[in-house]
Amino acid sequence: MKRPPLTNLINALPTTVPFVGPETLERERRREFRARIGANENGFGPSPRAIAAMERAARDNWKYADPTSHDLIAAIASLHDVKPANVVVGEGIDGLLGLAVHMTVERGAAVVTSDGAYPTFNFHVASYGGALVKVPYLANREDIAGLAAAAERTGAAILYLSNPDNPMGSWWPGVDIQELVRRLPSGCLLCLDEAYIDTLPASARPLIDVEHPQVLRFRTLSKAYGLAGARIGYALGPVRLIQGFEKVRNHYGINRVGQVGALAAIEDQAYLAEVVAQIATAREQIGEIARAHGLEPLNSAASFVAIECGLDGAYAKRILDGLLARDVFVRKPSVAPLDRCVRVSCAPAGTLAIFAAALDEVMRSLRK
Amino acid sequence: MKRPPLTNLINALPTTVPFVGPETLERERRREFRARIGANENGFGPSPRAIAAMERAARDNWKYADPTSHDLIAAIASLHDVKPANVVVGEGIDGLLGLAVHMTVERGAAVVTSDGAYPTFNFHVASYGGALVKVPYLANREDIAGLAAAAERTGAAILYLSNPDNPMGSWWPGVDIQELVRRLPSGCLLCLDEAYIDTLPASARPLIDVEHPQVLRFRTLSKAYGLAGARIGYALGPVRLIQGFEKVRNHYGINRVGQVGALAAIEDQAYLAEVVAQIATAREQIGEIARAHGLEPLNSAASFVAIECGLDGAYAKRILDGLLARDVFVRKPSVAPLDRCVRVSCAPAGTLAIFAAALDEVMRSLRK
Repeated sequence: MKRPPLTNLINALPTTVPFVGPETLERERRREFRARIGANENGFGPSPRAIAAMERAARDNWKYADPTSHDLIAAIASLHDVKPANVVVGEGIDGLLGLAVHMTVERGAAVVTSDGAYPTFNFHVASYGGALVKVPYLANREDIAGLAAAAERTGAAILYLSNPDNPMGSWWPGVDIQELVRRLPSGCLLCLDEAYIDTLPASARPLIDVEHPQVLRFRTLSKAYGLAGARIGYALGPVRLIQGFEKVRNHYGINRVGQVGALAAIEDQAYLAEVVAQIATAREQIGEIARAHGLEPLNSAASFVAIECGLDGAYAKRILDGLLARDVFVRKPSVAPLDRCVRVSCAPAGTLAIFAAALDEVMRSLRK
Repeated sequence: MKRPPLTNLINALPTTVPFVGPETLERERRREFRARIGANENGFGPSPRAIAAMERAARDNWKYADPTSHDLIAAIASLHDVKPANVVVGEGIDGLLGLAVHMTVERGAAVVTSDGAYPTFNFHVASYGGALVKVPYLANREDIAGLAAAAERTGAAILYLSNPDNPMGSWWPGVDIQELVRRLPSGCLLCLDEAYIDTLPASARPLIDVEHPQVLRFRTLSKAYGLAGARIGYALGPVRLIQGFEKVRNHYGINRVGQVGALAAIEDQAYLAEVVAQIATAREQIGEIARAHGLEPLNSAASFVAIECGLDGAYAKRILDGLLARDVFVRKPSVAPLDRCVRVSCAPAGTLAIFAAALDEVMRSLRK
């Protein structure tokens, strides 16, 4: 038989995937999780208006969604006070990051990120043959100055930064991000992943001209809006970069029910504010649970809390495994020194009570 | 301001999109269509079980879908009597075609298709810098021998073929496709787009070893299954090529409601058989409507009928415009000589009655 006609680049890629889903773990364990707080899904759920809109839309799913996402983009543009031509909608931030790499990364081009930052971004860079340059975190934060210097030194095509940061929950005040934007080397695109910005106080958010030719800001309906399953993300950026997406995106890639649900969710900002308050409360609750067991919660502006377990990655892994064995789905950073933490998603009190009880058992067994 | 950091390849791409959606036309016209029969959506709709499953799933849309699509892939594998490792699920055939190009097309590589065949495939090839080689249709069919010869001559990375064909509705019997597979040049991937295979009699479908290293068969839930809005397509192929998709696909790109709906639809093969029969009836009805107005319906094995208007593309365009002006959404091929046709999607009798009345008015006005 002849060989499969893959390019050498694709043939050489590893087959590892960025994240194993909880369903795979459930099948392996032959038991369902009682608390699903590992993927930063939002257990408070989406606006009831979004649920109702999606229920109504199911019957119309024989029609393609509007490939221009006209109404959704109009709502997003209005929310951010930009033009519709400054917005592109995609299949989650993951999908849009892949397109951004496709649009900007020539084979062999340097791409700068933090060591331990979002692996799905790295996954896309690898599949386009980009050369990742990884800058270590500094005291649980991404090292903005180090990232800028690395981008300058390597002539990077992209500088990736998440703010608030995933997986640590840390953040830089808006003025620091604005300074990074001013210092961007020529020809370098800043991919600013703001999946968790809705839980960052408005006063801490950066002010960036949406027409800045080198900045794309990525947002999602998956986190604070509670619509992870809908796969709706969007990017804000200059018209010319947004037009670039139009040249490469899957125009009919957006599902109809998700598009309808996202519009209803964005139109219900009052509900979003309620959920953001609930998430803040849950952050406090997770912090208390951690402290009650001698663990140290990191300050977080995101919809999760990274909990410092006090020793190394191996110790944190024991805690993680203990929680998984007790039917609590959590995840942890995989790169040292971040890997000394476990990461817990904000969730309703009942879910966190299950987490607390499981953690209590785990810590008791570790002390034996 | 600095220039947007796009690659030269992307900068040079045109901004045209493959298909303008009916919603865009409706906004331009400031009036809704009464008959939506231009995008080969299936107005008979999906299985009621799929609708019920999607309605139930809306509430759970705060969770990501299973990124492995385990249950859906198991059902697909069972349906086709292959292993789950022979199946990949993606955001419609469009999304999967983009990934197939990403995996196999080096910049400058030749890619063979028919002149007038699926423009979305060409769109993906252009964005990866492939060099399209277009073979003319032969008597309303894709020229299999010509395609194979062109692939051989150019050392093509991909040979694209849709069977049944879109936009003409023609098809090759299974034995001819099997002969094409035998004649595939070394190193060339056959992308066999079988979006419309569910309406092709089983006896006419090709028998191809799913482990053939150079063949991917693309299927969709958008056509006979009536779930265009769900954005669920899949590819069948050898394990090593399917593993290639795992290296490049957006693992969390599938929406939860669509995944659930697709599973329910595939499990309801009795409903599919009913719809396939309704589509066959609708093909006859469209043919009768065409003939009643002196137009010639082409033989079709798909869920649409291409109607030969008797003169050239300009004349067919006048008929198309007349239908659009009367609130009937149809499309037509854009490349000569196929462009002498208009293409009408199968639909319930009430919808086709609207089409018939509008066509009657159009043809009367053209005779004046």
